[in-house]
Amino acid sequence: MYRNEHGEAIGKLKVLFFDVNETLLDISNVKQAVAELLDNKMELADRWFNLMLQYTWMETMADRYHDFGEIGLAALHSIAKMNHISVDPAKAIKAIVLIKEAQPHPDVEEGLHMLHEMDFNMLTLTNSSNPTIVAQLQNSGLRRWFDGMLSVEDIGFYKPHRHVYRWAANRMNVKPSECMLIAAHGWDIFGALEAGYRGAFIERPQQVLYPLVEEPEIIEPNLINVAKRIIELER
Amino acid sequence: MYRNEHGEAIGKLKVLFFDVNETLLDISNVKQAVAELLDNKMELADRWFNLMLQYTWMETMADRYHDFGEIGLAALHSIAKMNHISVDPAKAIKAIVLIKEAQPHPDVEEGLHMLHEMDFNMLTLTNSSNPTIVAQLQNSGLRRWFDGMLSVEDIGFYKPHRHVYRWAANRMNVKPSECMLIAAHGWDIFGALEAGYRGAFIERPQQVLYPLVEEPEIIEPNLINVAKRIIELER
Repeated sequence: MYRNEHGEAIGKLKVLFFDVNETLLDISNVKQAVAELLDNKMELADRWFNLMLQYTWMETMADRYHDFGEIGLAALHSIAKMNHISVDPAKAIKAIVLIKEAQPHPDVEEGLHMLHEMDFNMLTLTNSSNPTIVAQLQNSGLRRWFDGMLSVEDIGFYKPHRHVYRWAANRMNVKPSECMLIAAHGWDIFGALEAGYRGAFIERPQQVLYPLVEEPEIIEPNLINVAKRIIELER
Repeated sequence: MYRNEHGEAIGKLKVLFFDVNETLLDISNVKQAVAELLDNKMELADRWFNLMLQYTWMETMADRYHDFGEIGLAALHSIAKMNHISVDPAKAIKAIVLIKEAQPHPDVEEGLHMLHEMDFNMLTLTNSSNPTIVAQLQNSGLRRWFDGMLSVEDIGFYKPHRHVYRWAANRMNVKPSECMLIAAHGWDIFGALEAGYRGAFIERPQQVLYPLVEEPEIIEPNLINVAKRIIELER
């Protein structure tokens, strides 16, 4: 019997889901290329990624769905328009697709290796489309650590809609309480916890947890520390 | 019989719903006060309002609800944390509640007056809580133009979730196609159109429509022009 800090029975941890963009992969190559199109203003590239996320949430709330890449492109053109910058459409596409070439953060290989030694199912759970996540894991060399890849494309809702997490648990034939999401985004951890998952937050620079709810059981600056904590918990 | 540009029959326009913050009211007084707490960085105040919105969407997707003011405060503390700025909690509350004192944009009185002469029901439909919208309309002198005030607080979903717009139409006993949303936010217009409303976008500085969907029938730089267009349409 596994119990949480309040002495309540919880299921054994069976599945680890990993967020990909910004959690495993450093997407600063894309942001750099986007900034170059936006008068070299790095803060506009940050706003671009943010607006891309906002657009996914907006669509999910209206029960619509466009692919993450299309939305990324739309967000780039919106940021350009807001700032009276003219962006060449072909160059915009070129910048966006660089997300397929993003490389892992330096702590990621070792952290995944440590967790891979344990008895978990390990899967990616991403807002990227199916073709993009396949390319991303291939190009980053991370494919070998995972038992599978889930994309929101298959359900047509973006994270953090709670249906996404419930669907992912169902796909793996486990309860939400037997799943943990590992992510560097407060909104992703929030959604997972609200859906009944356990959570591990990687506190990368500029990332914060949502203040109005309970914190996840693990908060660490990198995946190596997260792996150590999970291994400790499951010992 | 009313027909749209494609010759399709549409209902007569019966209810005008108005977004409030940034559409009718200029909230730069709040942003100014928030910026003062954030090392006088105006771009951080813009990020604050944006993050507040994001938090409302995040909660709606997880089926949770906190009041707009509480979320505004949480967003302010998050932005401060991301930027390693220490903010006094009492001063933070003081800054946020200034939203109750926001004054109308210069075009708003005349635009409302023009529409008031017509045979519409006019209501506010806002993410602000009930006590806040009451104070806002009182303090801005705009109360007299409206037949009622609807707050998302009564349904527990934030705009642009499509349930909000359907609920508002139901409350007024009309079909969504008999309603128009007037707003300065692309995401709000998007949500309303997806719910079957008609839409008028006020293209205020820095505001853009969502590029991946059809545009609303009215796009104008201020409420006076919007009013003229609506009056023309209904003549």
